[in-house]
Amino acid sequence: MTMHFADRLSSAIRSRGTPAVVGLDPVLEMLPAELQPRDRRLASAVAALEEFGRAVIDLVAPLVPAVKINAGFFEALYGEGMSAYYRLVAHAHRRGLLVIGDIKRGDIGSTARLYARGHLEPPTLEDVDPECIPDGVTLAGYLGENAVRPFIEAARRHGRGVFVLVRPSDPGADEVHEFGGDLASPPFYTHMARLVRRWGEAAELVGQCGLSCVGAVVAPKDAPGTAALRDMLPQTPFLVPGYGAQGATAESCRPCFRADGTGAIINASRSVIYAFRTPAWSARHGEDWRASIVSACRAFAADVAVLTRG
Amino acid sequence: MTMHFADRLSSAIRSRGTPAVVGLDPVLEMLPAELQPRDRRLASAVAALEEFGRAVIDLVAPLVPAVKINAGFFEALYGEGMSAYYRLVAHAHRRGLLVIGDIKRGDIGSTARLYARGHLEPPTLEDVDPECIPDGVTLAGYLGENAVRPFIEAARRHGRGVFVLVRPSDPGADEVHEFGGDLASPPFYTHMARLVRRWGEAAELVGQCGLSCVGAVVAPKDAPGTAALRDMLPQTPFLVPGYGAQGATAESCRPCFRADGTGAIINASRSVIYAFRTPAWSARHGEDWRASIVSACRAFAADVAVLTRG
Repeated sequence: MTMHFADRLSSAIRSRGTPAVVGLDPVLEMLPAELQPRDRRLASAVAALEEFGRAVIDLVAPLVPAVKINAGFFEALYGEGMSAYYRLVAHAHRRGLLVIGDIKRGDIGSTARLYARGHLEPPTLEDVDPECIPDGVTLAGYLGENAVRPFIEAARRHGRGVFVLVRPSDPGADEVHEFGGDLASPPFYTHMARLVRRWGEAAELVGQCGLSCVGAVVAPKDAPGTAALRDMLPQTPFLVPGYGAQGATAESCRPCFRADGTGAIINASRSVIYAFRTPAWSARHGEDWRASIVSACRAFAADVAVLTRG
Repeated sequence: MTMHFADRLSSAIRSRGTPAVVGLDPVLEMLPAELQPRDRRLASAVAALEEFGRAVIDLVAPLVPAVKINAGFFEALYGEGMSAYYRLVAHAHRRGLLVIGDIKRGDIGSTARLYARGHLEPPTLEDVDPECIPDGVTLAGYLGENAVRPFIEAARRHGRGVFVLVRPSDPGADEVHEFGGDLASPPFYTHMARLVRRWGEAAELVGQCGLSCVGAVVAPKDAPGTAALRDMLPQTPFLVPGYGAQGATAESCRPCFRADGTGAIINASRSVIYAFRTPAWSARHGEDWRASIVSACRAFAADVAVLTRG
């Protein structure tokens, strides 16, 4: 019997003592000088991205329960880049990390079945590494239940999870997600929250920790709005973007947690993986980019650790 | 000076005499017996999918102006499957077809820039086939303008286009897209339509034919709703899903066109590429799956040709 996704996540959070998740969003232009590709060939670009990804994973694996790998940054390098994404998922698993594939896929049912096959179901072909599939993925639920159901089925059967976009971090998303937010009608994001609750509330989807394998992406944009979502979605794990480079703080993330300190993981991407480019860390560690990443990750993990105490 | 996407599309529609687009959504289970993979290895599965894709492209290239290649069906085979997607885009270009990449991507601005790099911008690495990038892509605009702007910029600069989801074909999407549709407020899909109009209305985005490079995916769900969208979006090219296997007919697609017969392309996927599995065509062509595909494509192209006459 496979352990439930939310129970695996809770256990990993307890073991590392923090709900911090490091987001891997690598772009060539930002890599340390020594990892820059030697030439303008695709294989060199992919190798550079992958070497940096492996290094970050190795550095943060002892410090956090999970990494989130952003597929878009690998798709920028076509199919070869995506092959590197899958190899990094496997590498993170072998370093003892849970892995969230940040894919934001969302298409009609007949296509969603295929996306679920490539991104969340265990491989059935004999020479595909079974470790290359993440434990959870982010999804767009805007095409309705059919768009997410194949993923939820895979999650239920294989101890995996999904995080459906409810309230994105980018202020640019407000023109859709705050739509309708007047006295007569609640904002659009609360409609998405109701759908996510319905999709994930069946008892068979809920783990021993009381959390469903159907989670939500909830940026802590304003404390009352976040608290209202937490109340609406008592069984829903939140994946919280926006910490660090995007401006959220541990304090602003607090309403994402349940009263007992469970129910949320906090992601930071650029502020950790590019720490060596910020004066705060490079002043201390100079050219040692690895040391800057470790220090930034430790500081982030410690800063949000308090949130799990309830 | 690169020709505008909508002008290229209009010219291709005139030259083939039909607004029919063939959708390539291949799954291993549905391939002709002779193309089934010989073993359970990933490379064999990818080769089978790709061989079928090349065959369909070769068969339909003389009959239609464009093909739509659905990325999800290739992602089901991981990075290697995506590499086949890119090779098929290039192959279709070499057969004189316009290509729409059906990717439905939608993420916040910082990630959208990377997705645009991999899916719509001309490659900058020296050994990437410049023909492997499609002429247009489908997008999800639910994260707002920042999620689509990098694609629109690439479209403007390189004579390419985007089709943003406004009204999807899957009835399951209604729980989101018909949200709010009561006396007090119009349905959510009209809000998306207004955004698409705004994103695409700048003069620099509009071609000589009067259509923007920012299009919309509009399923012909009900005639009044479709006509209202056509009125709201006079400069917006429509990519119309749902014909054939999903139940739409040429008549139900008519309100997607402008009065002069321009402004829309009609996609059919399964009813054409799996025609050899339907009694209507296999009764006539027996085991000759290529002949069934050609006949089904000719019938589809002729059925919707009348719509371009205004």
